[in-house]
Amino acid sequence: MNNFELKNPTKIIFGKDTIEKVKEEIPQDAKVLLLYGGGSIKKNGIYEQVKTALAKVDVTEFGGIPANPEYATLMEALQVIKDKNITYLLAVGGGSVIDGTKFLSAAAVYDGDTPWDILTKNIRTEKGMPFGTVLTLPATGSEMNSGAVITRAETKEKLAMGGPGLFPEFSILDPQVITSIPQRQLANGITDAFTHVLEQYMTYPIGALLQDRFAESILQTLVEIAPTVIKDPTDYKAASNFMWSCTMALNGLIQKGVPGDWAVHAMGHELTALFGIDHARTLAVIAPSHYKFNFEAKKEKLAQYGERVWNITEGSTDDKAYAAIEKTVDFFHELGIDTKLSDYTKDYEGTAEEISKRFTDRGWTGLGEHQSLSPDKVEKIVKMAY
Amino acid sequence: MNNFELKNPTKIIFGKDTIEKVKEEIPQDAKVLLLYGGGSIKKNGIYEQVKTALAKVDVTEFGGIPANPEYATLMEALQVIKDKNITYLLAVGGGSVIDGTKFLSAAAVYDGDTPWDILTKNIRTEKGMPFGTVLTLPATGSEMNSGAVITRAETKEKLAMGGPGLFPEFSILDPQVITSIPQRQLANGITDAFTHVLEQYMTYPIGALLQDRFAESILQTLVEIAPTVIKDPTDYKAASNFMWSCTMALNGLIQKGVPGDWAVHAMGHELTALFGIDHARTLAVIAPSHYKFNFEAKKEKLAQYGERVWNITEGSTDDKAYAAIEKTVDFFHELGIDTKLSDYTKDYEGTAEEISKRFTDRGWTGLGEHQSLSPDKVEKIVKMAY
Repeated sequence: MNNFELKNPTKIIFGKDTIEKVKEEIPQDAKVLLLYGGGSIKKNGIYEQVKTALAKVDVTEFGGIPANPEYATLMEALQVIKDKNITYLLAVGGGSVIDGTKFLSAAAVYDGDTPWDILTKNIRTEKGMPFGTVLTLPATGSEMNSGAVITRAETKEKLAMGGPGLFPEFSILDPQVITSIPQRQLANGITDAFTHVLEQYMTYPIGALLQDRFAESILQTLVEIAPTVIKDPTDYKAASNFMWSCTMALNGLIQKGVPGDWAVHAMGHELTALFGIDHARTLAVIAPSHYKFNFEAKKEKLAQYGERVWNITEGSTDDKAYAAIEKTVDFFHELGIDTKLSDYTKDYEGTAEEISKRFTDRGWTGLGEHQSLSPDKVEKIVKMAY
Repeated sequence: MNNFELKNPTKIIFGKDTIEKVKEEIPQDAKVLLLYGGGSIKKNGIYEQVKTALAKVDVTEFGGIPANPEYATLMEALQVIKDKNITYLLAVGGGSVIDGTKFLSAAAVYDGDTPWDILTKNIRTEKGMPFGTVLTLPATGSEMNSGAVITRAETKEKLAMGGPGLFPEFSILDPQVITSIPQRQLANGITDAFTHVLEQYMTYPIGALLQDRFAESILQTLVEIAPTVIKDPTDYKAASNFMWSCTMALNGLIQKGVPGDWAVHAMGHELTALFGIDHARTLAVIAPSHYKFNFEAKKEKLAQYGERVWNITEGSTDDKAYAAIEKTVDFFHELGIDTKLSDYTKDYEGTAEEISKRFTDRGWTGLGEHQSLSPDKVEKIVKMAY
């Protein structure tokens, strides 16, 4: 087990009919900017619940934050923060709205030349403008971590940011919100959380027995609840375990003391940038090829995953490891998630070379837990994923 | 799954050679009271490491906090805090020293008549004097929670306290500290953590699938590392998983959204009070009888535990549940922990009646997850444990 530090101050308020508790968490004298996305919260009743709870608070609204939160849109919100002397941000949405709000939390207090620096110069935020979240889409785990990914259409960039000052002060998780989420997004959420766990787990054994078992616990739970979530999102048992699993998949706990991979995300982000494929689906496209390509380096963990998550008991380590990859592909398929790039676009020729070139241009010479995945290897993996 | 709230702001610093980091966590201008127990830290080098790290800080010392931290001793420490204008507390020890420090954190800022009120009047501390810990004995989980248990010899009482202001600001967990812990205390620590998990898990199914799996993960890890920890505490892989499992067993995570039992602790505390039996050993005495007595109410979870933790695959739910209790007893025995009261004292006659009477006197009419364990049932359970 590697040395680690863990501090996660976010207050989680979890359960049925908890959205009204937002009024207890935001200072009464705050000037709040309520941020949301495409407006689904106005159809599913969440907007009404939040507005009713904050009836006595000074609330300005900013809607329209897109999936893959866009820098240009966020700069408009930043202007509102300044014009209205906002003191508290409230994200009501999924990972994109929350990530966008984290950027605003950082940008609102940043005193450099341009907030774009926060993304390009890796500026970590020690203390941002305080913010809370009401989660409407379980998937990314952003509601209980301090990281964000921001997109800039102008430069076709998708960049990460973070810092200890960017944990939400509170996050309200009412699993009932998933009843209004389209099946496609539910499948994406499950796939996203599942892959988050794999990125932190599918590396090599490092003697972190408890972390391994926690990671496997999340995977097992997602496998167990996935069919019910897709079929009947009003099933509270499935919904609540789905939501809590998504949060625990990326709140920092299971990554402590272990190596991380994250190469699947690095490659997947490019597929979203190039083709607009849903984030989660890009992960399902890349992961199987990635694990096959890096089979020797990962086969011990792949076999352990096969045994513990998929109950594969027969065969050698190699057999179990290979079967585990197949089981993972089957799982994605059962969710209705295609796992080949050609399922999403007929225009895939040259993609591998393009992504490899982008990584080279950025100086990304070695991704993955061994920092050994060079751009030429990335090219081969993406090709395997056609 | 029940609704829940979770907020745990303690910063964990985990790993090899991390004790020196204490200097980065305590304000340089703090007036620190360093609290410890019987002085073992002066023999095992931990005291030196802490003192060296804090060479530039104003440190006063208070040693001699006993196992089951004693109110009278703590009142002496409180006087030192006042006399020396202490601003920061540093616990260097196990659960007793940390619990005692939590009491002092609360008492230092309490403005009522007597700090005893904190214990008898269930006064929750919203903000105590800031404190950190250097853990020297994995067991209780006190290093990452906000609860404490304090003993008062004068009145033969052992009372609980807590509040959101009593989380340590930081806790340093260097697994290497276990190399100097006597085998007996290592066995106690494993038993204590194992039973902490059982108290939060061995109730009835409530659809908290992820919490169940997390609880089982800790149990599985403890089972896996226990023989090595006892045989060779210098094995870092075993030591680090032991230490992290003890913390995760009682930092609040696995209890969220699920019913808790805690009747084993309630009964066990009395055996410590009456006979001075080590806390962990009292739990091993009570737990098997408790689970047999409440078999019908707990058998579904007992069987699940048997299947998942002990790989019991044969037989009915009842068979598996019963076999799981037997496996638990065997596990304690392999650790060198006796599981009958008569193994500890020949003077056990009348104990069940005495404990039952004490519970009646305190008005404890219904313990356990169903609040249905009345004093007459307690009497029967304790008798079964003779």
